Amino acid sequence: MITRMSSLFLRTLREDPADAEVPSHKLLVRAGYVRRVAPGGYSWLPLGLRVLRRIEDVVREEMNAIGAQEIQFPALLPREPYEATNRWTEYGPNIFRLKDRKGADYLLGPTHEELFTLTVKGEYSSYKDYPVTLYQIQTKYRDEARPRAGILRGREFVMKDSYSFDLDDEGLARSYQAHRDAYVKIFDRLGLEYVVVKATSGAMGGSASEEFLAVAETGEDTFVRSTESDYAANVEAVVTTAPAAQPIDGKPEAKVHHTPNTPTIATLVDFFNNAGLGREFTAADTLKNVLLKTRRPGEDKWELLAIGVPGDREVDQKRLEAALEPAEVAMLEEADFAANPFLVKGYIGPKALLDNGVRYLVDPRVVTGTAWITGADQADHHVMDLVVGRDFVPNGTVDVAEVREGDPSPDGKGTLVAARGIEIGHVFQLGRKYADAFSLDALGPDSKPIRITMGSYGIGVSRLVAVIAEQYFDDRGLMWPRLVAPADVHVVIAGKDDAVRAGAEKLAGELAAAGIEVLLDDRTASPGVKFADAELIGVPTIVVVGRGLASGVVEVKDRATGERGDVPVDEAVAHLVGLVRG
Amino acid sequence: MITRMSSLFLRTLREDPADAEVPSHKLLVRAGYVRRVAPGGYSWLPLGLRVLRRIEDVVREEMNAIGAQEIQFPALLPREPYEATNRWTEYGPNIFRLKDRKGADYLLGPTHEELFTLTVKGEYSSYKDYPVTLYQIQTKYRDEARPRAGILRGREFVMKDSYSFDLDDEGLARSYQAHRDAYVKIFDRLGLEYVVVKATSGAMGGSASEEFLAVAETGEDTFVRSTESDYAANVEAVVTTAPAAQPIDGKPEAKVHHTPNTPTIATLVDFFNNAGLGREFTAADTLKNVLLKTRRPGEDKWELLAIGVPGDREVDQKRLEAALEPAEVAMLEEADFAANPFLVKGYIGPKALLDNGVRYLVDPRVVTGTAWITGADQADHHVMDLVVGRDFVPNGTVDVAEVREGDPSPDGKGTLVAARGIEIGHVFQLGRKYADAFSLDALGPDSKPIRITMGSYGIGVSRLVAVIAEQYFDDRGLMWPRLVAPADVHVVIAGKDDAVRAGAEKLAGELAAAGIEVLLDDRTASPGVKFADAELIGVPTIVVVGRGLASGVVEVKDRATGERGDVPVDEAVAHLVGLVRG
Repeated sequence: MITRMSSLFLRTLREDPADAEVPSHKLLVRAGYVRRVAPGGYSWLPLGLRVLRRIEDVVREEMNAIGAQEIQFPALLPREPYEATNRWTEYGPNIFRLKDRKGADYLLGPTHEELFTLTVKGEYSSYKDYPVTLYQIQTKYRDEARPRAGILRGREFVMKDSYSFDLDDEGLARSYQAHRDAYVKIFDRLGLEYVVVKATSGAMGGSASEEFLAVAETGEDTFVRSTESDYAANVEAVVTTAPAAQPIDGKPEAKVHHTPNTPTIATLVDFFNNAGLGREFTAADTLKNVLLKTRRPGEDKWELLAIGVPGDREVDQKRLEAALEPAEVAMLEEADFAANPFLVKGYIGPKALLDNGVRYLVDPRVVTGTAWITGADQADHHVMDLVVGRDFVPNGTVDVAEVREGDPSPDGKGTLVAARGIEIGHVFQLGRKYADAFSLDALGPDSKPIRITMGSYGIGVSRLVAVIAEQYFDDRGLMWPRLVAPADVHVVIAGKDDAVRAGAEKLAGELAAAGIEVLLDDRTASPGVKFADAELIGVPTIVVVGRGLASGVVEVKDRATGERGDVPVDEAVAHLVGLVRG
Repeated sequence: MITRMSSLFLRTLREDPADAEVPSHKLLVRAGYVRRVAPGGYSWLPLGLRVLRRIEDVVREEMNAIGAQEIQFPALLPREPYEATNRWTEYGPNIFRLKDRKGADYLLGPTHEELFTLTVKGEYSSYKDYPVTLYQIQTKYRDEARPRAGILRGREFVMKDSYSFDLDDEGLARSYQAHRDAYVKIFDRLGLEYVVVKATSGAMGGSASEEFLAVAETGEDTFVRSTESDYAANVEAVVTTAPAAQPIDGKPEAKVHHTPNTPTIATLVDFFNNAGLGREFTAADTLKNVLLKTRRPGEDKWELLAIGVPGDREVDQKRLEAALEPAEVAMLEEADFAANPFLVKGYIGPKALLDNGVRYLVDPRVVTGTAWITGADQADHHVMDLVVGRDFVPNGTVDVAEVREGDPSPDGKGTLVAARGIEIGHVFQLGRKYADAFSLDALGPDSKPIRITMGSYGIGVSRLVAVIAEQYFDDRGLMWPRLVAPADVHVVIAGKDDAVRAGAEKLAGELAAAGIEVLLDDRTASPGVKFADAELIGVPTIVVVGRGLASGVVEVKDRATGERGDVPVDEAVAHLVGLVRG
């Protein structure tokens, strides 16, 4: 097919849009792929829609290849199923809610777990029906607090969401792996640089969950990766490697010291280093006890929780919330200290906590046999050489201390470095949460019900347009990978005389006849304007039909590498078909 | 591709759904194409989604063929553009409205005139840019008071809406005709029986507007068609052919009669027929004056309006509203009669109306020289031989009397009969309404602005799935036209022995290799169940691989005609490819 720029609904812009900060947003607007309609709401202009559709096709092919079946739900959904799973409440202000003319509550679907579960329940009954995997490529809605970066984080967007339904955990593991493999194929085919990060540590018994993050400096998600292996994880999911336990025998006895004027870890370490003990300490030798309170969902009562971490690390808020989920967590208030006078602020130690029944969890590094400087439960006093397993026994461990660059990689290879990325996919073993909510059972061979177990798998399809742009651009514009480009070849008519125009039309016609998608710049604009637009639009191969035609050649340029060369016009079609078909 | 029924997400139902009244609704649910999720909200199961996509493809091809360019808008739209055109108010309870987390007003788009207009205004500026036609195939929302008939009238549905933008009326006429022609192609290709009806009479200066109605007994729309030509129109759009004016000279003089006990037209006609006048009257000789009041948009004050129609016809409410639009119309209340004592209820005549300045419009049949029996403006009195142009001169005509079967067709050929249909498409010359609202101008060659004129064109894409079903079914199930069927060939394995299964698998494989979409019933169910499902699902060609295989044949059955015959298995692929490719 030939798309003529003389009539194409496209106007490129010379200036970046005022509200754009990231390259993909600037370039997709400037090159006429998308236009802003509302906060977080964009229209797809012809070239943008083509890229979106080509990405959809890749996703669809790979989903079909693993036997997933495409269906489609409405976006406007009744409240009741989301009430049943409590998500109507949990989503808070993050979903769009509305009432119909009769006053009934609806929402615009953010994801469709409930509907998929109910639909499978409606159709299937026997164990023989399973497993099944269903998916849709559909418009979704989230009322983001801060829609940003154009189509990277919109409020209306296209997602592929799929759900697997299995009879047992082994089946779920297979479905999960099939999706993970399909996602690798999809993102590889799209030419993306990405990492697969563990999304949860599994410490609280959670099931497998991995995120696919496209590597991008502008990404909102931070993650850590190993310097020497392909290990990558969200900071929430990093599992600290516990050192080996140490022998207790021979450790000096615990001793309480009067430690005035030591309000910080640094001053405390200085105090002991200057105490004439002949020993050298660092902040990592101190044990900082952080007091919190937690509350389980649906309960009124808060419970105290103390967390002991080495003094050289802070508690990481995201890791803390992930570790304690679904419980709520809050800092103590003055009233809490007043109600628990054994808590001596600044000097809290394991003894008072354990003696008074406060749940006390420690960092995995706080293993049996390690000795610590920590609070002595009275003002201006600390205890030294308090040994785990001898002087106190914590109630357990909790892995919430901050992860730092240089920490050993949990897989034992290399150390961790921080990086930024954009979430493009998520594979997640949901387990039986939704099946429980809707009593999704299969009748087993023994006529007993089998509770179904589910997986949930998402790809941000419209976001991928921006993510690819974010990885494929230079200072002149976009540089689409061939598979998703809005056209295969961009033919520029660079000259006004009839022979040039006729030659270009002939070439474009022959290419189209060979099944090549041609973007033909047949406008009356100057060659300079046309070249600049071609670079901005980013079709992978640019063919310039101009003065060279008189000597029987056209110029073929690779948009990404900048390589260019003359090709005899008689060989141009074969040459270009070869390039496009690869 | 082979789709295996052993794993296809499909369960057919033996019973009609309780809420289904029309055949398409019953069959699409029973055959597992769609499922109800909410009032007017349906999910598309795998087979239904395939039919929908195939219809979308046909629509897309024909839109691209007339140079329309595909784009896509969000469904979630800000209030402001709809405020500018007053549609935010006019839609009343018929659209879904919502607020975002910041309290800003949004709606779910019912149609996108505003957005298309603003987008063209954003990109284009010169007269050289025009004409342009844009379209989208997109999910739309309307809060129907009575969602019904499954996907025939849903609250969330897929529509193709396109808009043409031209510099002048001639351009608009060309764009309109191009769309009209494309629609004819689309509906012809889809195998639909339909009529194109004039949607407005043009009496109020409206521009061209035609509706495409699929002929269906279950349709919500009524229309009339000629017995002898292809004339068809909505009743609102029927233009009554006015008879020729008659000479006034020689008509008897008007005379008032005392007519007690004539409360109805029938009793009045009887009275005069029995009055010894030697003349014979019918209800068509009486002139009934209907009193109404009207109010223009945005005004408080109601004005009286009298309409004179022949006594054998009622005023048609839909024709009345269409004729007076955008004015509001209401019946008189007792207070109105009290305030206008010259209105003698039951005996209102032209004289009192005209003498008292009431606007008085008459049916087109009430032409100069015709004589009427009508009210004499005093109780128990009527006047006879009141002649138009001699005894009274109405303020004009209004074409709102009911249209009846047997009325002459406005094109002069044959008479009118009533029929029912379902609206599947609408082509409409919008004119400059939206361009005016948003000041959409092109800069002309003389540097003066040219106000753009628009056309609006819609096709109910998801509705078409039901409409086709409504025209292609029998008592055993659906009978899809080949172009939109969810598969090309339905291969039924009718037998349990390995040779039959292997033969069917081989045939299916060879068909798939030849590019045929195969639905393969490889379930363990009985042949009877499989045959019934095949008839219900409605793939146009059913191939039964069973006992005949031993003697080298398979049975090929045409779902629609019921014709069946044995085909040698060696020739089956060629035979079936021939059938499918037509």
